[in-house]
Order: sequence, then structure tokens, then C-alpha cells
Amino acid sequence: MPSYKAPIRDMKFILHEMLNISDLAKYDQFSELDTDLVDAILEEGSKFTEEVLTPLNIVGDHEGCKRHADGSVTTPTGFRDAYKTLVENGWTSITRDPNYGGQGLPGLMGIPVGEMQTSANMAFSMYPGLTGGAIKAISVGGSDDQKQTFLPKMISGEWCGTMNLTEPHCGTDLGLLKTKAVKQSDGSYKITGQKIFISAGEHDMTDNIIHLVLARTEDAPAGVKGISLFIVPKFILDDNENPGERNEVSCGALEEKMGIHGNSTCVMNFDGATGYMIGEENKGLKVMFVMMNEARIGVGMQGLGQSEVAYQNAVLYARDRLQGRSLTGPKNENGPADPIIVHPDVRRMLMETRAFNEAGRALLYWAAKQEDIERHSSDEKEVERADDILGLLTPVVKGYLTDKAMASTIDCQQVFGGHGFIEEWGMSQFVRDCRITLIYEGANGIQALDLVGRKLGRNGGRALMTLNSEIDAFVAEHEGNEELADFMKELKTAKGKLTEGTMWLMQNGMTNPDNAGAGSVDYMHMLGLTVFAYLWARMAVVSQKAINDGSNEDFYTNKLITGRYFIARMLPMVDAHLAKIKTGAAPVMALSAEAF
Amino acid sequence: MPSYKAPIRDMKFILHEMLNISDLAKYDQFSELDTDLVDAILEEGSKFTEEVLTPLNIVGDHEGCKRHADGSVTTPTGFRDAYKTLVENGWTSITRDPNYGGQGLPGLMGIPVGEMQTSANMAFSMYPGLTGGAIKAISVGGSDDQKQTFLPKMISGEWCGTMNLTEPHCGTDLGLLKTKAVKQSDGSYKITGQKIFISAGEHDMTDNIIHLVLARTEDAPAGVKGISLFIVPKFILDDNENPGERNEVSCGALEEKMGIHGNSTCVMNFDGATGYMIGEENKGLKVMFVMMNEARIGVGMQGLGQSEVAYQNAVLYARDRLQGRSLTGPKNENGPADPIIVHPDVRRMLMETRAFNEAGRALLYWAAKQEDIERHSSDEKEVERADDILGLLTPVVKGYLTDKAMASTIDCQQVFGGHGFIEEWGMSQFVRDCRITLIYEGANGIQALDLVGRKLGRNGGRALMTLNSEIDAFVAEHEGNEELADFMKELKTAKGKLTEGTMWLMQNGMTNPDNAGAGSVDYMHMLGLTVFAYLWARMAVVSQKAINDGSNEDFYTNKLITGRYFIARMLPMVDAHLAKIKTGAAPVMALSAEAF
Repeated sequence: MPSYKAPIRDMKFILHEMLNISDLAKYDQFSELDTDLVDAILEEGSKFTEEVLTPLNIVGDHEGCKRHADGSVTTPTGFRDAYKTLVENGWTSITRDPNYGGQGLPGLMGIPVGEMQTSANMAFSMYPGLTGGAIKAISVGGSDDQKQTFLPKMISGEWCGTMNLTEPHCGTDLGLLKTKAVKQSDGSYKITGQKIFISAGEHDMTDNIIHLVLARTEDAPAGVKGISLFIVPKFILDDNENPGERNEVSCGALEEKMGIHGNSTCVMNFDGATGYMIGEENKGLKVMFVMMNEARIGVGMQGLGQSEVAYQNAVLYARDRLQGRSLTGPKNENGPADPIIVHPDVRRMLMETRAFNEAGRALLYWAAKQEDIERHSSDEKEVERADDILGLLTPVVKGYLTDKAMASTIDCQQVFGGHGFIEEWGMSQFVRDCRITLIYEGANGIQALDLVGRKLGRNGGRALMTLNSEIDAFVAEHEGNEELADFMKELKTAKGKLTEGTMWLMQNGMTNPDNAGAGSVDYMHMLGLTVFAYLWARMAVVSQKAINDGSNEDFYTNKLITGRYFIARMLPMVDAHLAKIKTGAAPVMALSAEAF
Repeated sequence: MPSYKAPIRDMKFILHEMLNISDLAKYDQFSELDTDLVDAILEEGSKFTEEVLTPLNIVGDHEGCKRHADGSVTTPTGFRDAYKTLVENGWTSITRDPNYGGQGLPGLMGIPVGEMQTSANMAFSMYPGLTGGAIKAISVGGSDDQKQTFLPKMISGEWCGTMNLTEPHCGTDLGLLKTKAVKQSDGSYKITGQKIFISAGEHDMTDNIIHLVLARTEDAPAGVKGISLFIVPKFILDDNENPGERNEVSCGALEEKMGIHGNSTCVMNFDGATGYMIGEENKGLKVMFVMMNEARIGVGMQGLGQSEVAYQNAVLYARDRLQGRSLTGPKNENGPADPIIVHPDVRRMLMETRAFNEAGRALLYWAAKQEDIERHSSDEKEVERADDILGLLTPVVKGYLTDKAMASTIDCQQVFGGHGFIEEWGMSQFVRDCRITLIYEGANGIQALDLVGRKLGRNGGRALMTLNSEIDAFVAEHEGNEELADFMKELKTAKGKLTEGTMWLMQNGMTNPDNAGAGSVDYMHMLGLTVFAYLWARMAVVSQKAINDGSNEDFYTNKLITGRYFIARMLPMVDAHLAKIKTGAAPVMALSAEAF
């Protein structure tokens, strides 16, 4: 059975040594934040995820969820109990608003905790994860009454939440959605329609499930301008705000999926279900998009989480499995063969994943910190800067991290040879679970379009300029450091090429938008690589300083080695992406649609 | 349910117009080969695979195989009948030796037929596929008696065959294998041991199963020099050579796998089973490797087959699914949205797969033709040349084609968005089935090592020189052709870079073999890309000539468009691979094994 150890040392490195999470204590809400608190949370989080969630991962995959004739859904053995423990230990509320019972920690703290949960058991982690999205939507768009009614029990974990967007004929293009909302005399609505791919849509973990549902009111304008957002509880609340009468919403079927079997992915039927509008009529997508940006960071986290746990298991296997001899002579002379970790190509796959995981973690946490700054700073410039960086990084976190995580989980599975293909070893599950991260919350191609078509150009390209000046200032500060000259040089080169790609897209996307579309995924990867180069350089600075200050912890030396692997073996991909971008739309669009 | 149409037009293009399959008629055995015969086989093959095998693909995935308490195994609904039809229609014998009931067609003809079967139903196609491997081993190493006894019924399909190599503690490193063979007074052996991952190890399709088993005789030398090969029939033949007494070989368990559920992957227990040695004692691996080289070509074919069928379904979905509007203005003005094939990033994924499939098919068929030449030509030079090219191409066909096929099936699944993740649509199955092709018959890292460590250096590098002169001669012939100047120029450039990579590996692999190991997979991809550039240029020459000769078939124009996509958007990867190769072992091996 696969194992998992939370990478606490690396998490601490990023949170404390690189990002200085305690900076956030300057905001009133986080005044109690200190290193000990952060570390205690990481330690407790690791225990819960290693001991409770990890053993259930393969159980969830194997058993899946079961829908019964009455539409009820049973989660896999152990999931209910684990959810109870999750709630009792307060994990659902750590970053939530204290006004509604939350513990008020920075959103950034939710990321390592979430990473651990998703590494340990991605399917399980989606039940509280989706609730988080629903909490966010109600927090952003709900009335005070709605917040008072729903948030405390969702934050405590007593109730779960869901997001109901997709319909059979539309996912990406929400303007096409058909679910109807008819206003009732009491101000509520009757919601009718079918939603598909609803994660955690029905289950046995909580007394109520709070569905957030996109629908059209009568006479709403067509397209995206006619979509409103509704709260539809599984059980309508009685006068004491306890779950009462069963609402007309039910799970019509469970989808059979490639992965995340432990999560119930439901077809949800709304048959005149009672719903309450959130925010203004026809402005539902606005609320949804606020929520979705956060969800996209969460999906990037899921990708990283799968890549991390796949890496850990591949390392254990590569150390354990004896097969063949090192090309440079036996390394395990008394054994029948050498452990396969001696083979360069096995190393390559492990280093590739390791260098990705460590930079991916840095990117994810760095992005998450921007959100805390944006929400809590009173310095307008600082807020604008954080918002710019976060907006620019969000598609990269979602799209680039998950694309690369997929490749990493496949590489780690490959380390196992034939055993990687056998379900018992668990490597297939990491690949299959990871696969959805490239799709949901906006397929990665949509992330790339969001980046190139929206984020790059917004405010005259301010976001990228902000990032560029940050990188320039960093390079200027450290360029004289001979020990790290390679990191600075390669970062500058990558940034130059990114600029070249950006200019090309700007100039040629004007004349033909397909030029931008055809290069968008390559550009997203190029930006991802450049940001990684920046983060690796930052991590190198911290590590080199620790060494120079006398630390003899191997961690720092290993960090530099891993960073140098990134520079040597992964960063060269920037050129290939640039070359592809500059070919433009012509080769991509030349074949007529009928000729395929 | 996913569909499949055999790509007969493209198959004919490659077989007739590019490779001139009728050349092979100059060899006595193939004197009856002509265009009509080839085309008739393609047509019949397409009917059988489209009508019989395709509908069973998802059935096989869903039901899987079932092992019963007595060790017997039932294949999925419909598989037995389909196998019966396969045999009745003569598909198992088309390329086999007429001396044993085969139809004696060139091995090359087995490739399009096999491609169709594997596209339609990979799990099913493995039952006759593995039999093919066993036939080959007996043909190469067996005594006349053994051939007479076993080949006719295996060739007719009356009996199936298997290959038993892997044991729980060894797969790649066969020198470690432990299965014992004890000689009996009658010259037969008693085989005892456990084999795992045995495809088609037990099933209900045939009256007998002929297992080929690697084992060690008593007092055999340790390691690879002490391995012999044995025939172990499921039922020992009686005096009339009919299946008689049950042999002591049985299926102990079925593996639960990521994919190819319709094929029974067995743990096989040999408990003093009666076996007959093939060829000489301790020379079993030699026979096995002859067989395995052919099997590797077959695995490359499986990868291509999955990529092709995934592509076809992605195209249908991309034409059908309405979502969003083209960046350059509506293309389906009267509809609620445009089909997603208008979006450049959807096109990118389709073109990427198409350009891969067409070149992959050309590579596969070209390689297969070399084997026919090698086996049937009496011209020593021609044989040597064919053997060199085939040896060099085999790891590329196996490793590069399957690596790329995996990426392609994932891209095609991505086109489906959320529906791609749902099993009902079948795209997940293509990805899951394809996944094994990167692993079995030598994991792709092993292919790369075979290429760099063995094939490149053999006979003073003669094979690569042979390939290079073929390319040089081709370029010299067509360099003056202005219409195709881009193809020739890019081919020359890629070949130059390949040479640079080769030189680097030669020079630096001497001082440290890990330098070669660390760059081996990148080199395999680089060679794959360069060979693709060559094959695309050849296909371009044929297509341009057809156009210039007055053909108005769109096929040729589309071929040129697809080739130019390859040049513009795929070939640039050569630079990234070269850059990675030239970093050598240092970044890959720097981290100590304990530090991972």
C-alpha cells in the first residue's frame, strides 16, 4: 500500500525562510500568527493525514461511492469516520472568518494543510474542499442573513457544500445553461434542471448539503448576462434553522470516472427545488468567478499533492527494488543487483518530479500569500500589486502545475515498471486521480486563454510588468553573488525569452486572435518555467545564505542541487515553447475542419 | 460509445505510394503479392475490426476477466465468439509460415491488420498477439518436431500461446530469475516457480495454451548465462497430439490493472509442470530476444493504435460539441455556439496527434518492411542494411512511439473536457490501455539504453551511418525541389543536431557511462523526431508529386499541411533534447541516493 509523509521540512522552508509567513502578523486579523503556531499546525496536519487519510486512499479508489435506489449515496468504508475526525479536529475552519466560527488563520495556512490532505487522499479532501468553495461564494455574495444561516455550520463542517455549474450540454460555455429559477411569492425560487459532474453532490457525511446552483430566472437575458446564483439546501431549514423538509433536489446517478472514485460525482436533478438567490439577479457569474479563482489555486494544489505522494513512493521503490547494475560498476556488491535508483534514467524521472514539486510548492504558497495580502492589507499599492500577481499566477498554478503534475505522476508510475500498472501498488491511482486536475475548474486550455486573452492585457499589461520589476529587482540585488551566478544568469535569460514571447503574442494577436490562441498553452508553460526559475533563484539565495551562515543541514545543499537540475534539464524547454509560439496560428489552423 | 474507422486511405498511401510494398513480390515467397490483394486484406480487416472488435472494447474494459475457484478464467462477454470469428476468417495466420499452415504474406501486412485490431480492441488483440510471440520463439529456436507439433495449431489459432518471463522479484533483470527446471529421464523437464504479469496466461478461448517459460536447469550458471527456454502446454499432448492430461501449471490470480482489463493478466504457478526445452540449454535468452524485438515493434503498434482511435473520437467530439465562439468571429452563426474545433488550442491537440499518428504509422510500416527484407532477401548487403535500420529503429518504435502515444491519448481525452474523465465516453480507456505500452517488453528507459548503449555503437556505428546516408541521398535528390524546400531544410538541420547529440554521447559516454544513461531518453526522442522529419519529407515528396501530376484528392494537400505542422510545432523539440543531453550526468546524479 502506498505511503505518505508530509514534507514538513520543505513546507517550513517555504513558509518561514522564503515567504516569511509571519509578515502577515502585521495585519490585525493575524496578529497571533507566529512560527510556533504555524509549525504546530503542520505537525498536527501531518499526523491526521498520514494516519487517518492515507490508509483510506486506496480503499476509496477500490470501493468507490454507492448510490442506492432512494437516491442516497454511501461513501467508502472509513470516510464517514475520517470526516468526523476532520471536523472534530477543526480542520474545516482554520482559515475561515472568525465572525462565523472560523479560526481566522491566513488563507496561506490552508494551502500546506490542503496539500497534505490531497496527497493523502484527494477524493476525500474534495468533500471539505467543495464546501470551501461554497463558503467563499456565500461569503462574497450572500446577504447577512444568508451568511448567519449557512456559514457557521458549513465552516464547522456540520454541513457540506457543493457547486452546481455544469449541465450536459455546457461546461466551459456557461452562457448556454438552461436550469430555470421561477420566483415564488415568498421571495424564494423554484429551481428546475439537471446538473452534471457535481462533486460531493450527495453523500452520507453530513446532515445537510448546501448546493450552490447557477440558473436563469424567467425572462433573464440570454447568455452569460442572464445567470443568477442560488442556495439550494438538500433539507430546507425549519424555523429553528435545522434541516427540515427534504428539498426537491436529488442525485440521479453517480458518474463512473477514471479516478477520484472515493468522491461522489453526481448527476443532480432539481425538480422545482426551493432556492434562495445569492446577490443580485443576473450577476451570478461574478460571484462564481471569485470563488472559481480560489478553486483554481486549489486544483493546482491537488496536482502538486499527487505529484508529491507519487514521488515519495517512487523514491521508496527505487531504493528498494534491485534490478541490474549501475553503469559505473556495482553499488550493492553483496546484493544480487543494485537498487534501481543507481540508474540515470530512474534518477532523471525522480529529479524531474522533485524539482517540479519543490518549485510548484513555492509557487503555490507564494500565490496564496498574495491573496492574504490582497484581502487584509490597507495599503492600496500593496493590494494592487498582490492582486496583479495573483491574477497572473492563477492560470499558471492551475494549468501549468497540473500539466506538469500529470507528467510527474506518470514518470513516478514508470519507475515501478510493471508494478506501476497494477492497482495494488497505488501508482495508477495517483495518475488517475491527477488526471481530473487538468480538466475541472476550467480545462487547462481555458486557463491558457484566460492568461493570454485576459490577464496579460489587463490594465495595459500591468501585472506582467509588476512581476518583471520584482524579478529585475531581485536579480539586481543578487547578481554580484558569484556562488549563485548560474541561477541569476539563467533567470535573466528566461525572462528575456518570456518577454520576446509576450511581445510576439501582443503584436500578432491583434492582427489575428488565433495567433494568441495557438500559442496560449505554450505561453502558459513558458511563464510557468520563468516563474519557476525565479522561485528557484530565491530558494537558492535562502539556501546558500544558510550554508554560508554555518548550517550543516543537508537540506540546503540538496535544495541547491535540485535547483541546478531545474536549470540544466527543465528550463531549456523555454526555447521550444518560444519557437512554437512564434509559428503562430497558420500551422495550427491550416487544415479545414472537415479534413480532420 | 467510442467508434473506430480503419484509416485505410492512409494505410494504402504508406504501403503503396510511399513504401511500395509490391517490391516485396520480388522475393519468391511473396510472388503473389499485389495491390489488389493488399487492398482486399485492408478492406476485410477494417470490416472485422470495426464491426466485431470495436463494440466489445468498452465491454472488455467494464467486465474484465474473471478467475473462478478452480483457477479457470472467463473472458468478457463476446470475446470468445469474436476469437472464433478471428480464427475462422484466418486472421491469425496471414503472415505465418506456409510450411505450417500460414498464408505466407509479408510481416509488413501484419502491421496494418494488427494496428486495426489494437485500435479496435487492444485487450482482445493481445490474445492472438502473444500467440504470435510464442510462434516466433518456437520458429526460431524449436526443433523440427516441436515445430510440427505446436506451430500448425498455434498458427491456425486453435491454440493460444504465452510468454512467461517476469517473476515477482525480476522483470528487466532476467538474470535474477529463479524458476527451476529439473530434467526427467524421458528428456522432459519439471518446471517449478512463479511467473507474474503473464498476459493471456489463462482463458476460455482455446482448447490448449502453449506457455513458453524461462527457467534455470539444475547447476545452470548464475545470471543471464543460465537461462533456458521451455514449452509448457496447459494440457499435455496425448499420443495423437491432442490436449490430454492437465499439466501442473495454473493461474493463481488475476492482476487488477489500470487498463487492458479485457486481457487476463495472470500470476502463473508452475508446480512441477512438464516442459520441453527449446533449443540449447542456457541459451534461452537468445531465442527470447529475437522474439522480443518483434514484440517491441508490436508494442509501438499498440501505442499508435490507441493514439489513432483516440484521435478519431476526439475529432468527432470536437466537431459536434458546441461551446463558445471562435476568436475570429462566429463560425456557426445560427447555432447557440461554435463547435469546439474552431478553437486554436483544440486544433493544436488534434493536429499534434494527427501529425504524430501519420508519421508514426509511416515509421512502423517502414521498420516492418525492413524485417521482411532481412528475412527474405538473398542480397547480403541488403540484408545487412535492413538489419541495421531495423535494429536502430526498434527502440524508437517501442519507446518514442509509446511515449508520444501516451501524450496523444491524454490530449484527445482533454478535448472532451469533463466527459473525457467519464468512463462511458471511452476516452479514459484509451489512456489507461495505452499506459502499459510504455512499460512492457522493456520499459521505455530500457529501450533508450538499448539504443544508446548497444545499437548506436554496434559495428562501429554502422547503423546510424546507414540511416544518415539514406537521408543524405534523399535530401540530395530533392533539395532542388523548391516546393518542398522547407521539408528538406528542416530535415537537414535536425539531422545535424542529431549528429551533434550522437557525438556528444560518444565522447562523454566513454569517460562516464552515466553521461550516456542520463541523456538516453532525450536521445531516443531526438532520433524519433529526426526520423519523423525524414518520413514527413518522404511523404511530402509523394504527395506533392501526386498533386503536380494532377490529383485533386484533398488527401495529398492535407498530408502536406499536416507535415508542415510537424515541422513548425513538433520538430523544435530537437533543440530541447539536445540541450538536455549536453548537460550530462552531473545534474541528474548529483543528489545522493539517500537524499531523495
